[in-house]
Amino acid sequence: MGKKPASGDTLYLGIDGGGTKCRAVLVNESNQVLGVGNGGPSNPYHGVTRALESIVNATDHALRNAGLSAADKSRVVAGLGLAGVNLPSLFQIVNQWDHPFKAQYLTTDLHIACIAAHEQDNGAVIVSGTGSCGFAHVNGKSLTLGAHGFPCGDVGSGAWMGLECVKAVLLDSDELGPKTGLTELVAEQLQARGIMIVERLNGAKSSDYAKLAPLVFAAAEEGDEVALSIVHTGADYLTQVARKLWELQPPRMAMLGGVSSRIVDWMDKDIATRMSDPLNQPEFGAVHFARSRFMAEASVATS
Amino acid sequence: MGKKPASGDTLYLGIDGGGTKCRAVLVNESNQVLGVGNGGPSNPYHGVTRALESIVNATDHALRNAGLSAADKSRVVAGLGLAGVNLPSLFQIVNQWDHPFKAQYLTTDLHIACIAAHEQDNGAVIVSGTGSCGFAHVNGKSLTLGAHGFPCGDVGSGAWMGLECVKAVLLDSDELGPKTGLTELVAEQLQARGIMIVERLNGAKSSDYAKLAPLVFAAAEEGDEVALSIVHTGADYLTQVARKLWELQPPRMAMLGGVSSRIVDWMDKDIATRMSDPLNQPEFGAVHFARSRFMAEASVATS
Repeated sequence: MGKKPASGDTLYLGIDGGGTKCRAVLVNESNQVLGVGNGGPSNPYHGVTRALESIVNATDHALRNAGLSAADKSRVVAGLGLAGVNLPSLFQIVNQWDHPFKAQYLTTDLHIACIAAHEQDNGAVIVSGTGSCGFAHVNGKSLTLGAHGFPCGDVGSGAWMGLECVKAVLLDSDELGPKTGLTELVAEQLQARGIMIVERLNGAKSSDYAKLAPLVFAAAEEGDEVALSIVHTGADYLTQVARKLWELQPPRMAMLGGVSSRIVDWMDKDIATRMSDPLNQPEFGAVHFARSRFMAEASVATS
Repeated sequence: MGKKPASGDTLYLGIDGGGTKCRAVLVNESNQVLGVGNGGPSNPYHGVTRALESIVNATDHALRNAGLSAADKSRVVAGLGLAGVNLPSLFQIVNQWDHPFKAQYLTTDLHIACIAAHEQDNGAVIVSGTGSCGFAHVNGKSLTLGAHGFPCGDVGSGAWMGLECVKAVLLDSDELGPKTGLTELVAEQLQARGIMIVERLNGAKSSDYAKLAPLVFAAAEEGDEVALSIVHTGADYLTQVARKLWELQPPRMAMLGGVSSRIVDWMDKDIATRMSDPLNQPEFGAVHFARSRFMAEASVATS
């Protein structure tokens, strides 16, 4: 992919790291894409070591894709946008690790997604993927809503929908909750019923629960009352998040994440219709973030 | 404690193992208590190795308390009533471990609690401690309700109350949910607000969430609407569980667990007033269970 850069050029890497996977894009000084890569889960909240491994894997993948080698990491100015680093302690750990890059600039996945979605610093995004949250950045001020993680928050996310689905199916199996079509859908997907569902989910991560979210949408579309209640609760929460972000008067708002294209249809119409399409993938926001920080530092150093 | 048994006597050990702690009682062939002991968390769902360590620690504690040594474990017929072994795979692992006892008999914490509470095989119990569930054993038939674990189930338990409390406080901190007095109570107990609560609870276990349950009762008693809603939801679920267990016509029903004495006051009056006091501690049910199984095997062997 792309042409091989001269060996002295600085390379810019953008990393978008979430609970399920990690995306990397490598560009040259002229912002041409040289290579792309993927890695595993990279939310340090669910394991710092695993997250850092995923980031390195995705980087090496992108370098190979560009016809470069892992050793070229020392030429890379990396922008990392990671879920979980809204927590100060995790920010500090990842910001201070013994990284293999020429330079590393760390911020949240929300921040880089917002920059990328609007191709400018000002804007707002609502994420509904494995987790959920809202973020706005307007004239230097930021507001984050949610981003509380699983199982304490993330209403309207895939993991939250999956957990609510399992709760409802278990109540149904005890005949202590309403009958729901989710029972058969979960039985088919997990090959388990009742207490065996709990066994199947022993040690399950948020990304495992998120795999059940499509079942909830499917059942809701068939009119299943339990599924409808889950979808409406999630969508209403995201509507509330959007209303609160609009109070800051961002120029644009976009929805991101694997669940967003489905849940937006259940949100209040006045909010859903005001959503703009994201202009670019989050990893390009990470490139933009890394480049502007690196340039700013370089200009300070030479002034 | 008690007199030292002759060195050839069989000792009976009862273990009641839950998500927070593990209790052991050691008796002689005449059912006299020789010693008692405690250990750490022993629900294998949250870690088999730790659970087995806790069981051994509690046993050694009870042996020392009886003036015996750890080596005397080889004289011990152990009855283990453990949370989590309602899952077949966990039952199998714990049932087949290389245990240090003369003999080991495994069943659920619910089963031994029920035997102990009623000093007979027939009866029903509702547990509201770190987790929650219902169990009835009537004329050889058993019914278990709930016992689905955290975070998929356990409505009306301490861990569930703590999680619902955190969810409500986080919504309040984002101004996306009703104001609640729980916010100040949690801030005081965890020394954290907003996103810092999530940080404080990074890696928290069900037993950590359960420590927040007293705050919910305190706020509910002050009339806090959010806390009242949590307590009512939990109590209504346990009321439903009790009604379903009464359909099996057990001779007695008792409530067990650290949260039960508080939540019973919020359950439907007709159900709350039918509860009997438990006659004995669960670990004595484990002794009864181990003794009857051991005797039955011995009588088969000699007949």
